Amino acid sequence: MRRRAPRPRSTTCCATKPLRGNLPEEPADPIPLAQALIRCRSVTPADGGALATMETALAPLGFRCTRLKYGEVDNLFARRGTEGPHLCYAGHTDVVPPGDEAAWKDNPFAAVIKDGVLYGRGACDMKGGIAAFVAGLSDFIAANPDHRGSISLLITGDEEGPSVDGTRRVLEWMAENGHTPDMCVVGEPTSKKQLGDTIKVGRRGSMNAFLTVKGRQGHSAYPQLADNPVHRLIRVLNALTSEPLDQGSQFFEASTLQVTGIQVDNTATNVIPAEAKAFLNIRFNDHHHSSALTDRIRAVLAEHAPEHELRVTVSGESFLTQPGPFVEALQRAVRRGTGLEAKLDTGGGTSDARFITHYCPVAELGAVGATLHQRDESAPVAELRTLAGLYRIVIEECLS
Amino acid sequence: MRRRAPRPRSTTCCATKPLRGNLPEEPADPIPLAQALIRCRSVTPADGGALATMETALAPLGFRCTRLKYGEVDNLFARRGTEGPHLCYAGHTDVVPPGDEAAWKDNPFAAVIKDGVLYGRGACDMKGGIAAFVAGLSDFIAANPDHRGSISLLITGDEEGPSVDGTRRVLEWMAENGHTPDMCVVGEPTSKKQLGDTIKVGRRGSMNAFLTVKGRQGHSAYPQLADNPVHRLIRVLNALTSEPLDQGSQFFEASTLQVTGIQVDNTATNVIPAEAKAFLNIRFNDHHHSSALTDRIRAVLAEHAPEHELRVTVSGESFLTQPGPFVEALQRAVRRGTGLEAKLDTGGGTSDARFITHYCPVAELGAVGATLHQRDESAPVAELRTLAGLYRIVIEECLS
Ligand SMILES: [Zn+2]
Ligand SMILES: [Zn+2]
Repeated sequence: MRRRAPRPRSTTCCATKPLRGNLPEEPADPIPLAQALIRCRSVTPADGGALATMETALAPLGFRCTRLKYGEVDNLFARRGTEGPHLCYAGHTDVVPPGDEAAWKDNPFAAVIKDGVLYGRGACDMKGGIAAFVAGLSDFIAANPDHRGSISLLITGDEEGPSVDGTRRVLEWMAENGHTPDMCVVGEPTSKKQLGDTIKVGRRGSMNAFLTVKGRQGHSAYPQLADNPVHRLIRVLNALTSEPLDQGSQFFEASTLQVTGIQVDNTATNVIPAEAKAFLNIRFNDHHHSSALTDRIRAVLAEHAPEHELRVTVSGESFLTQPGPFVEALQRAVRRGTGLEAKLDTGGGTSDARFITHYCPVAELGAVGATLHQRDESAPVAELRTLAGLYRIVIEECLS
Repeated sequence: MRRRAPRPRSTTCCATKPLRGNLPEEPADPIPLAQALIRCRSVTPADGGALATMETALAPLGFRCTRLKYGEVDNLFARRGTEGPHLCYAGHTDVVPPGDEAAWKDNPFAAVIKDGVLYGRGACDMKGGIAAFVAGLSDFIAANPDHRGSISLLITGDEEGPSVDGTRRVLEWMAENGHTPDMCVVGEPTSKKQLGDTIKVGRRGSMNAFLTVKGRQGHSAYPQLADNPVHRLIRVLNALTSEPLDQGSQFFEASTLQVTGIQVDNTATNVIPAEAKAFLNIRFNDHHHSSALTDRIRAVLAEHAPEHELRVTVSGESFLTQPGPFVEALQRAVRRGTGLEAKLDTGGGTSDARFITHYCPVAELGAVGATLHQRDESAPVAELRTLAGLYRIVIEECLS
């Protein structure tokens, strides 16, 4: 890992160095672009000038930029080259809200560097990662101006939001316009302890279920005249939670079902209430599809609580990019760039990779996510520079 | 049943007729005293002049009256005679609040009579019943001025309230002062459809349990890092509700355990909450004591949710007055007074009989409770008059 003081630089949008015929002696620095992006107040779904900053950085590198606005959401697609193989890098410039800004050590949008650490909302998730990719890209192009295939960036402003008018819509546009990639790296901060220790090759699916069980109100001294919906709900939830959904699969942990809430609007112990509600979250692996899980819940409800309502929302199905040339290329890149053997992983929440998987092999490789979504979010300057070098090697491996 | 128009009478406190040597040709009318009592605004724990009205009615009949004030609560003990057998009549002059008075057809404290029905808060529970007892008592004394044994009234102003400074305290005072009765009739409106169809010879116990199960908060995508208290609570409640507590006993229905509420302060499906609460009500028969039931809950909690809090409140233990001379006397009285075979029953909520049972055989016999605690509470005039006659016969049977 490089350890040196940040070099004095302007914080203009384009942090890349002029192209050179070979790998530059001094690699491009991701930090100025990372700072410029953090200083754009792009709390989802606001753009705050972040995509213009990206365009300014990419245009000089020979990228053709297309802004795609869907609803309130700004998106950017940028591609260099027209041939295959087509490697796409997917990321987001929107960030989660900073919460109480006064509680941060520094202003969350000031992009302050202290003791070699860059602080600010998005430093880790994932403006720092995007800047690292642009820096690595710049060095790759400098060394390989006539590279094989093409490289694109899919940058959305709606990853932290409802994810309706972001990556999903851009992918549709890409498919309609001949830009469907052959492989895609998502730059989410997926590393666990050390940069490169983890490549996410899939994600569990996630769905929520909202159950309402109906009964008949009454006095608790005369339960035979009532029909206690709480007892019915207890049977339902006991049935749903007493057996594991599965034992895991080759690349996935076991699926989980968590009852996160129960709501019975009754505090009088002499009253049997008329209805009882429960809220479930299911994280499921490649053994399951949301529709079969919904059927299962419906069957348990039918058995123990015939009078019910069920509402299900699906955040995403599970997906897996099977090991193969693309994943192997990423593993080689990690080995060359960090000396680590990356672990193939499918844990954690959802990301936009769940949309991309319908178009091409996709994997996620990025910074250490330790401070993601937290107060005083940060990324070590040295880590972002190492990540820039790693991304350069990723491009080399994928387009070689 | 007598059917005649109400006779014009003054509504002074004393509704009784002068004593006569034999059963009066025209029985004493309970209605004026019932009206006078209803017009006392004795919403628990207020007295509103109700006990003074009682004293004025009882003193001329030869009762020695003692007012017993404990805390905020007024009570009255009145006894005629000093010898055994000592029959006590227990009742309460306090009433539950009328709620929205404007929603009543007539003012709840006006004691209006319409179409042969007396309306007002307490008409049924249980000012009407008390007035009926005084009327029956008056006729009994008129016919039996030198009756055997003694008769007392234990009238409290705290039956509908916390029941701390009412019947319980008066019974202690009675025991200390040589007034412990040999048998006790509680005048609660226990009849179901027809006056006299039911004698309550016991009551189920009632207790509430408030359970708090502790876990460890976390993200629902990583349940292995959390400890979901909702799942623990589901196990606890499933264990507590899946087996009946018993199959009933000779005079009791099966005990019941009802989960009346569950509270989990969490609506975010991506969050596993830190704690979950449930509220139970148990109505238990003579197979159980509250302490053993508490132990049972504690054992189930220990098994499924070691980190917990348990708070139990006991409204009353179950009790049963075994069939015997006293209950048989009441059954004979009902047969003579109404022609019905009274059913011995132990259903429903709690009453002050739960305190009296520690001193002497106790049973409950009173008006039809159809409108108890309801808006437009009422008692048919004819029914209260029949009840007066029934109470006269009860006294005859118990003191013969
Ligand atoms: Zn992200
Ligand atoms: Zn009552």
